[in-house]
Amino acid sequence: MTQIDQQSSNKEIGTDGSFKRQTNRFSTPFGSQKGEWPVERGRYRLLWTPACPWAHRTVIVRNLLGLEDAISLGTASPMRPKLPDVDWEFSLDENNVDPVLGIRYVSEVYKNTDPEYTGRPTVPVMIDVNSRQVVNNDYYKLTNYLETVWRPLHKKNAPDLYPENLRNEIDALNETIFHDINNGVYKCGFARSQEVYEEAFDRLFFRLDELEKHLTSRRFLFGDYISDSDVRLYATLIRFDVAYYNAFKTNRNLIRDFPALWGYVRDLYQTPGFGDTTDFESIKKHYHLSITIFTNNDAKILPKGPDLAPLQTPHNRENLSGMTDKFLTQERSN
Amino acid sequence: MTQIDQQSSNKEIGTDGSFKRQTNRFSTPFGSQKGEWPVERGRYRLLWTPACPWAHRTVIVRNLLGLEDAISLGTASPMRPKLPDVDWEFSLDENNVDPVLGIRYVSEVYKNTDPEYTGRPTVPVMIDVNSRQVVNNDYYKLTNYLETVWRPLHKKNAPDLYPENLRNEIDALNETIFHDINNGVYKCGFARSQEVYEEAFDRLFFRLDELEKHLTSRRFLFGDYISDSDVRLYATLIRFDVAYYNAFKTNRNLIRDFPALWGYVRDLYQTPGFGDTTDFESIKKHYHLSITIFTNNDAKILPKGPDLAPLQTPHNRENLSGMTDKFLTQERSN
Repeated sequence: MTQIDQQSSNKEIGTDGSFKRQTNRFSTPFGSQKGEWPVERGRYRLLWTPACPWAHRTVIVRNLLGLEDAISLGTASPMRPKLPDVDWEFSLDENNVDPVLGIRYVSEVYKNTDPEYTGRPTVPVMIDVNSRQVVNNDYYKLTNYLETVWRPLHKKNAPDLYPENLRNEIDALNETIFHDINNGVYKCGFARSQEVYEEAFDRLFFRLDELEKHLTSRRFLFGDYISDSDVRLYATLIRFDVAYYNAFKTNRNLIRDFPALWGYVRDLYQTPGFGDTTDFESIKKHYHLSITIFTNNDAKILPKGPDLAPLQTPHNRENLSGMTDKFLTQERSN
Repeated sequence: MTQIDQQSSNKEIGTDGSFKRQTNRFSTPFGSQKGEWPVERGRYRLLWTPACPWAHRTVIVRNLLGLEDAISLGTASPMRPKLPDVDWEFSLDENNVDPVLGIRYVSEVYKNTDPEYTGRPTVPVMIDVNSRQVVNNDYYKLTNYLETVWRPLHKKNAPDLYPENLRNEIDALNETIFHDINNGVYKCGFARSQEVYEEAFDRLFFRLDELEKHLTSRRFLFGDYISDSDVRLYATLIRFDVAYYNAFKTNRNLIRDFPALWGYVRDLYQTPGFGDTTDFESIKKHYHLSITIFTNNDAKILPKGPDLAPLQTPHNRENLSGMTDKFLTQERSN
């Protein structure tokens, strides 16, 4: 463990040894009201790294909705740089600099926006390209903004991932998925006491057992169509067997041990927007080589497994649905 | 990583970053020839820890052959002590002292035998109780001594684990199992370069794939009866899903992903001498909390999984055998 990671992580460790994720500093919504960020084509740049599940969900939704031309994408390396603070670096770009913003580290836009900012510089984050300032880093709500107020810029026949008549139910399920699964794996991995680790572990697998049952008779979380909740669940499930099971000690079962969840994750993986934004090399490098807080690996050895070929095998989950299409389009939902 | 483990481990790391297991210092055989250690009831004490696969195989064979009364057993803790050298400690015993030998650390008998001894003090090791000196620490050959020259002290109807007509074949298979599986997992876990890790990983899974095929039509490695080779293979397989998959990065597949190997390991686990000498708590503590060379875990969090209950489920492998008995007794083999 480096001193750096230790210091940085301690801010987010409670007195009982549990992981307390920092709150988002920049949460002004997108919208047409006064004080909100206007929806504009080409104005913003979304910064992400393919390793990060919170950023990945935003990129999946951006792609599903056809917002690739409206919102440009800057890609940070999955390997955190060695600096006095935990940061993300554009070391995959020429000269280690994001070609649009001209920055080397994500922290630069945070400091540029608020010189007093002391939190972790996180992705996903939406940047105003002209001012090079942070507009919004609300990983929880970003997909919902893209699904709603960004609708004027969606592609034709874009799916409705957040249908009005289901929003309350989606919001409620998203809360559960967030606490017990998305952040649940981090609570396991970053726990500093056996007790809080086991509590998070039990809640995580309780929810996975519950969802396994739920998905045995339903193709997706809300039936025949992919919703915002599926994107959120996918971002954790697709990282589970390659990263969390080892690096975060979530080792009761692999996802491929759950017949329904394993079919479900393959179904999504094989859907454009999901598999083509899933970068296993980044994910493995980040969790096995770069997150060194609790997994010292100074020989920098990347686990060779698991075998990923089975992700491409038939899942037959279309049989659970009466529909040939797996997206509810906005036309049909209105 | 502690400095201590680092220093100690470096002696066994080759210039290419590969793990080179130290050779055994005390290899005088048991037997009735001059210069050999005589086979005697009550003269020797076997030191082990349930965590260690090399020691475990010796204890399994001791129990299968009914040598419990002939050779007493001293049990060291799976948690290595913090000392200038890697050691094993009798911290599970009253006053942290082995009740027969009166020693706290296994190193004491090594130093007592050879004050110049600078290797790792290893288990299994057979000690002469009166002199408190090391007799033999040849983890590779110890089971074979117990199976052959120790035969006069075996229980009635003891199995023949090393039948004369199969010895050449057993020896050849044991060599393969040793290099690619028993020590293969250590080569993965202790590798200091990506290349040597991947080479060991590929060889390990090549052999497991080969054995999966072999065991699909055979109940045990040599057919209907349990042999010395099965004991050796079991000691690694039973640790695989609970320890090596995570701690040693052997994560292409779990053993429970291989139908034949998974049935085979359950068959053995459910056989007296195997499951009742398998201490998962020790194994997990050792690999997850105590081997800190490449898996720093300073919050000392023990992975809660995997679920071990399936080990008790029916394996139906008796259908592969025409025999009701799974041991070839010495009477029948003569």
